[in-house]
Amino acid sequence: MSNESGKTLGIGLVGFGTVGTGVWETLHRNFDLISKRSGVEVEIMRIAVRDINKTRSEDAPVEKFTTDWKDVVSDPTVDIVVELIGGTTIAYDIVAAALRERKPVVTGNKALLAERGEELFALSLEFNTPIHFEAAVAGGIPIIKTVQDSFVGNRIQSMVGIINGTSNYILERMTDAGLGYEEALGEAQQLGYAEADPTLDVNGWDAAHKAILLATLAYGFTIDPKHVYVRGIEMVREIDIEFAKRLGFVVKLLCVVREHQDGLIEVRTQPSFIPRSHVLSSVNGVFNAVAVKGDAAGDSLFYGRGAGKGPTASSVVADIVEAALGLGHEGGHRGFLPYKKDGTVMDIEDTQTPYYVRFDVTDEPGVIAKIANELADAGIGISGTHSPVNPDNPDAEFVDMVFQLHTCRFGLLKDTLKSIEELSCVNSRPVVFRIENLG
Amino acid sequence: MSNESGKTLGIGLVGFGTVGTGVWETLHRNFDLISKRSGVEVEIMRIAVRDINKTRSEDAPVEKFTTDWKDVVSDPTVDIVVELIGGTTIAYDIVAAALRERKPVVTGNKALLAERGEELFALSLEFNTPIHFEAAVAGGIPIIKTVQDSFVGNRIQSMVGIINGTSNYILERMTDAGLGYEEALGEAQQLGYAEADPTLDVNGWDAAHKAILLATLAYGFTIDPKHVYVRGIEMVREIDIEFAKRLGFVVKLLCVVREHQDGLIEVRTQPSFIPRSHVLSSVNGVFNAVAVKGDAAGDSLFYGRGAGKGPTASSVVADIVEAALGLGHEGGHRGFLPYKKDGTVMDIEDTQTPYYVRFDVTDEPGVIAKIANELADAGIGISGTHSPVNPDNPDAEFVDMVFQLHTCRFGLLKDTLKSIEELSCVNSRPVVFRIENLG
Repeated sequence: MSNESGKTLGIGLVGFGTVGTGVWETLHRNFDLISKRSGVEVEIMRIAVRDINKTRSEDAPVEKFTTDWKDVVSDPTVDIVVELIGGTTIAYDIVAAALRERKPVVTGNKALLAERGEELFALSLEFNTPIHFEAAVAGGIPIIKTVQDSFVGNRIQSMVGIINGTSNYILERMTDAGLGYEEALGEAQQLGYAEADPTLDVNGWDAAHKAILLATLAYGFTIDPKHVYVRGIEMVREIDIEFAKRLGFVVKLLCVVREHQDGLIEVRTQPSFIPRSHVLSSVNGVFNAVAVKGDAAGDSLFYGRGAGKGPTASSVVADIVEAALGLGHEGGHRGFLPYKKDGTVMDIEDTQTPYYVRFDVTDEPGVIAKIANELADAGIGISGTHSPVNPDNPDAEFVDMVFQLHTCRFGLLKDTLKSIEELSCVNSRPVVFRIENLG
Repeated sequence: MSNESGKTLGIGLVGFGTVGTGVWETLHRNFDLISKRSGVEVEIMRIAVRDINKTRSEDAPVEKFTTDWKDVVSDPTVDIVVELIGGTTIAYDIVAAALRERKPVVTGNKALLAERGEELFALSLEFNTPIHFEAAVAGGIPIIKTVQDSFVGNRIQSMVGIINGTSNYILERMTDAGLGYEEALGEAQQLGYAEADPTLDVNGWDAAHKAILLATLAYGFTIDPKHVYVRGIEMVREIDIEFAKRLGFVVKLLCVVREHQDGLIEVRTQPSFIPRSHVLSSVNGVFNAVAVKGDAAGDSLFYGRGAGKGPTASSVVADIVEAALGLGHEGGHRGFLPYKKDGTVMDIEDTQTPYYVRFDVTDEPGVIAKIANELADAGIGISGTHSPVNPDNPDAEFVDMVFQLHTCRFGLLKDTLKSIEELSCVNSRPVVFRIENLG
């Protein structure tokens, strides 16, 4: 009886930064509650830290500290290893070593699993030892468990998510406060929402790693990040935010995962236009949300804090308990394993949406006609054209001209835009945003 | 290795109405997917139906039908019993019999568990056999698994839900289309959103049963429905919907569960005013949503279809797989058990919110002063008073006068309203709505 077993299981933490501290605090604060609710007692036995002399809170469990992660993994009192250092090299060694010792692993490391999941899941299978990774996607939102367990009866038709809080905060400030990109980024850094080096957040790869994990969970095959189309928010300009507003949209860094036919999966991350009326448009600040559509459950949405000490610790602790319950059972592998050998990420050129395209043109008669002709020749429909945002300067030599285009293959659009770019009235590379069909 | 076990487990269905048919269809349609994703194969072996001769789809598995539920429970090829007949008498016998045979039970029967959960969880403990009931609350939304497993590390501070789709649809139509209650109910019945006998939906008890289950899950003790305050939507009038709109609110049938101190829990269901700016106000139609606040995860929200064939089947199938995985293990009780002997539902008189109160008064000088004096004597603050909705008839003898009141004990408000009711200028019992503080 799990609720009566009462056995104490030992946890080893590798990494004691924000999340590690949060896990330790949560396990202490709610020890009784967790034991009663789950029937298992877990206790942190050993903690690997980078710098043992770093200033920490007075009650930090310094007696459990070591600077060598191997001490944690090999400690006989450690039953479950929690990897919280990030990165894809040492973290890989840690996870691999733990699996080889048949110690279940809990990790929030999306980059590690997205980049090296294939090797690690093979080890997990070989040593019949699970990897749990709820904290890797969307912080405190239990999206992994939902897709893996709660929606196990569903063919997942699509998952559309806002899963990078930093980007979402920056885009929100650009939209609501009219800040420029650099200014909004600086503000996010000041508030601790963006790291000193925000590269992975703003270039889309943090979100893309999470989308890769979600796609692997839902469709069963490991996905090579090289096949995934990823664009970040660095290219978003105030003028496009403004146009989006005028046209009834908001710009969000969106991960889109969609099954087209068995084994052919669309996976992409980019700033997109979404209708202001859609619930995802109200996901503000550092919050995350994932909309999941299953063939049985229909449309669902999961919303919550996507990062930070408490929310991430919440997911790590849930995984620790899950791992502990699994340990109590014979052959207790209850983690995820890819179950499909084959599967293909759809070529980005084959994906289809409507588009917003902004051209920087010389304002002379015939410009719209020339562009429209090229689009017509390609068979791409125009749903609207929009004049300059700032009509106060009607004599400007260069203006921005926006075309809203009907759904077409992305490859066709790209080729057509290349021809249009060569027109003498077009002054620079057109700016393209997808208009997402979230129906 | 769960993903390689390959054992087929037998399922027995008791009830083959909408949900039962949905479960059968889902298991068939997605058989390969479910087996690959979970590592277990499940097959429906026996189905109890009320009327074996009822017209059904051509491919209904009539060869598995019986009219005696005991045939299902005792069938040696049935490992897991799925109860889908509803009600609290025969359903009780079925669940109890299955537990006694040590066959895990999957049920979506919220009334059964809310009314007789104490007895059934005792049997579950005695026979070390779990009851799974994801489908009992919020249809396809995995709120049970979320509260029980994913938030196991959290002290749950509150759960606020819209968990009766019928009521939500009716209130939405009253709000958006200006329909009267009876008219909106009729429309819901025509569309199949309300049953021929909609009593349990509109009187609040369907939602209350779900709230009781959520509270039991989160706080660990069984809750006597007699201690729970429940009001339905039958008393909602167009005039209050109109006032709500004017004041920036919408009326929703809301379940509120909140921990005040360890073991003292507020549990109530009633139509409430919620701010139009809150995300719960956009939960429309037959959709459900539950906002959960945990001390680690913070604010989260889970949204989806709260009823219907597919969504409910999605949750039943997830539970079947969970039960099947549990069966593979020694002592595999992975279901919920109440873990706390004591706990108290807060007396409704002790609960506190701001309020909206509408008085039907005779329009004469001094009315507001008289009511305000009574409120002042009781120490209840007034945050605003509002004149009649329809000022076109300034000479009406009886008018509606709305007071928005600051937070106070519900008991104090009730007593004070009794005094006010006795004023000669007050013509009928005041109408009270809570204004929910969803901060």
